[in-house]
Amino acid sequence: MATIETRPRVVVVGAGFGGLQLAKALRRTPVDVLLIDQNNYHTFQPLLYQVATAALEADEIAETVRGIMRRQKNFRFRMGRVTAVDWDDRHVVLGDGSLIPFDYLVLAAGASTNTFGVPGVEEHGFELKQLEDAITLRNHIIAQFEEADRDPGAMERGCLNFVVVGAGPTGVETAGALRELFTHVLRKDFPQIDIGKTRVVLVEATDAVLGTFAPALGKYAARKLDAIGVDIMASHVVTRVERERVVLKDKSGITHALPTRTVVWSAGVRASTLADQLDLPQTRGGRIVVGPDLSVEGQPGVFVVGDMAASLDANGELHPQLAPVAIQGANHVARAIAASIRGKSTTPFRYRDKGTMATIGRGAAVAELGSGLKLRGWPAWAAWALVHLTQIVGLRNKVYVYANWVYNYLTYDRSARLLIPVDRDRDRGNADGISPGATRNETVDSPVTAV
Amino acid sequence: MATIETRPRVVVVGAGFGGLQLAKALRRTPVDVLLIDQNNYHTFQPLLYQVATAALEADEIAETVRGIMRRQKNFRFRMGRVTAVDWDDRHVVLGDGSLIPFDYLVLAAGASTNTFGVPGVEEHGFELKQLEDAITLRNHIIAQFEEADRDPGAMERGCLNFVVVGAGPTGVETAGALRELFTHVLRKDFPQIDIGKTRVVLVEATDAVLGTFAPALGKYAARKLDAIGVDIMASHVVTRVERERVVLKDKSGITHALPTRTVVWSAGVRASTLADQLDLPQTRGGRIVVGPDLSVEGQPGVFVVGDMAASLDANGELHPQLAPVAIQGANHVARAIAASIRGKSTTPFRYRDKGTMATIGRGAAVAELGSGLKLRGWPAWAAWALVHLTQIVGLRNKVYVYANWVYNYLTYDRSARLLIPVDRDRDRGNADGISPGATRNETVDSPVTAV
Repeated sequence: MATIETRPRVVVVGAGFGGLQLAKALRRTPVDVLLIDQNNYHTFQPLLYQVATAALEADEIAETVRGIMRRQKNFRFRMGRVTAVDWDDRHVVLGDGSLIPFDYLVLAAGASTNTFGVPGVEEHGFELKQLEDAITLRNHIIAQFEEADRDPGAMERGCLNFVVVGAGPTGVETAGALRELFTHVLRKDFPQIDIGKTRVVLVEATDAVLGTFAPALGKYAARKLDAIGVDIMASHVVTRVERERVVLKDKSGITHALPTRTVVWSAGVRASTLADQLDLPQTRGGRIVVGPDLSVEGQPGVFVVGDMAASLDANGELHPQLAPVAIQGANHVARAIAASIRGKSTTPFRYRDKGTMATIGRGAAVAELGSGLKLRGWPAWAAWALVHLTQIVGLRNKVYVYANWVYNYLTYDRSARLLIPVDRDRDRGNADGISPGATRNETVDSPVTAV
Repeated sequence: MATIETRPRVVVVGAGFGGLQLAKALRRTPVDVLLIDQNNYHTFQPLLYQVATAALEADEIAETVRGIMRRQKNFRFRMGRVTAVDWDDRHVVLGDGSLIPFDYLVLAAGASTNTFGVPGVEEHGFELKQLEDAITLRNHIIAQFEEADRDPGAMERGCLNFVVVGAGPTGVETAGALRELFTHVLRKDFPQIDIGKTRVVLVEATDAVLGTFAPALGKYAARKLDAIGVDIMASHVVTRVERERVVLKDKSGITHALPTRTVVWSAGVRASTLADQLDLPQTRGGRIVVGPDLSVEGQPGVFVVGDMAASLDANGELHPQLAPVAIQGANHVARAIAASIRGKSTTPFRYRDKGTMATIGRGAAVAELGSGLKLRGWPAWAAWALVHLTQIVGLRNKVYVYANWVYNYLTYDRSARLLIPVDRDRDRGNADGISPGATRNETVDSPVTAV
């Protein structure tokens, strides 16, 4: 038996980019790390849209937390849903009633979809935050084609119109990948369906595609989307989502309705709903107010990283809700915890923006590097693929994703077209109702990745 | 526009080994083939147990029917559940109310689990017939380990006791794979759990393991199972399955109870429940009575192939419910339909038994070839792997399964440990309730494959 040491316990909530990086960064710090997540795996969110559009299998962009962290001695994992934090007694409360005491607590539960209160989005819209969202959307898309094949009337009622809301990176990537799925793959699976009659509509409230990128790159993306057959409806806002149609309003206030059963909502994110249950000060989008070192004022040893944190840049602006912010924030907090244990003071967090990128389709992407360099077309696409392969967790996943991309590219095919329903409401993985329920633990909101 | 031809329509029910082979074998026959299945994919059932034990991913043993049959001009697919056949009007009735007229009908809906009326099997047991069964069992296994990790009391209540019922090939392969999953993989994922306290119990009513094989091979399998830590309880029958225990009776009539939450039922199969809804004569196990040419008496142009058919060998015995019987039967019926169109008479079906095999674990398998040759150990294992790789549908699946086997073998690891619940009750793939519900379309009952 080893002697029993009392080392500070660091509880980390969320196994997204931030939480996982934090746990790794503490590997040589004399603490016990307990990571809590509702799922037993980490999801590589930037590629969720490729699972939804049948380019990749769900398992290829996910890896079990226990598998990733196997070799780290001071690490433990707990599958569970955090419902509250008791600030007086300093413990975390789980959905099954367990109480987990902490010395340090890092909240890294990520983001959830922001519907901006638009009616019907929650009931009828599709989101792309979790692995199950991606599988659900893929199943739904394939089911629409199956139905159109057996009932041409369903097509006239709009079952093959697909609407993507929000022309940020997630929306652009999803719309482009949908169009390629239809024209290259489903056209061959469903020879009776006239693919020319399917529609992919990208709705954007502003007048620009990829508005956060340089205007020239946004225009390039819009041209490319148009060339592959995506209809861009700029300067339109969604006012309502219904079961079989979406209602839009244009700049002049005129209302349009488009028949569709598929509205993919990539218009915005907010902090995980866990942030609303913690009695901590919040700011825009539900993000938790933090000090310059990402700590929570008045709660010693409590930090927030990633999409949940309302951290500010030098200009006093909120940091973007992106993976690199979460990863760099996690490294910062790991250093802060180590410093705290040695009785030293913490330093302010500074985010180094290394750039953003988005892909539109085969050989078409845009990238804006931190150095100011702008890429588009093949060079951006190659950079995008390289960066994603580098960052995806697990050698096996890297190999499989690469193999799939090569296969998809050479054959114009996609193999991930099985329709296996996922159970979104059932207790996770245990028919006896013993396992924890669902919470949100994402840490990244869009497929924009630092280079 | 092509001129409109009226060609006979062949409706095939079930995309298992039999149904799929039948559709393929009719590719040059002047008929229109319509294949109906509840799923949009074909499942390679012999490897379901490897999905359940995290050795393979679900998508690696399944392939969409549309993808497989893309190039066959006279083929169409319909995703749906057959609920009845109108024999007077000669049409098939689907769950959504559609009527599908046929000139020829081939029933190939496969087998379902035979509980032999043992109480509790349906409610609390796990089966391995469909892809969703395998995913459900895998999720359940991982959830048990997660629970044992957080609550040692659950282990004392038997959450890490796993009972496999039936020491035929499916039971032997499942028990062996479970044991290897625990000792090689989950031991590393759950360092706090003493794997020596987990149990895998293989219950068999007779006194022999692999009773349909030569006694020497059965004894070899029993020794190998024992060596890797599977407890064999021969001459025991299950009298009841409860939520947290299984009740057994031994030869002398003494009753035992074993605490467990996981009873995998591989004790027997019967014909698909569809066979019970057709007003056709049935025999033992619900199989439909057929003539020597696999046709249904009094229903011209109607055939049954595979596990649903009560076809007889030269000794008047029922054929075993195995993939090769279904495949050879399908080829026979395809020839019979072609002959019928040309006005010729049909010939009797003769099954050529090329042998059976089963694997126990790393480098351990048994094979009994049609020639009388018996193999065990490495040669049988290599033959088993080769045969399965040859038979699995789709080049991509072959490559991925092979890669996974090599990876698992070299690393003693298994990557498929994600816990993603599947929705077994929900309408397949369409939240709007438009898609068809569930039926059974399996065609093979156990992982025994011809060589």
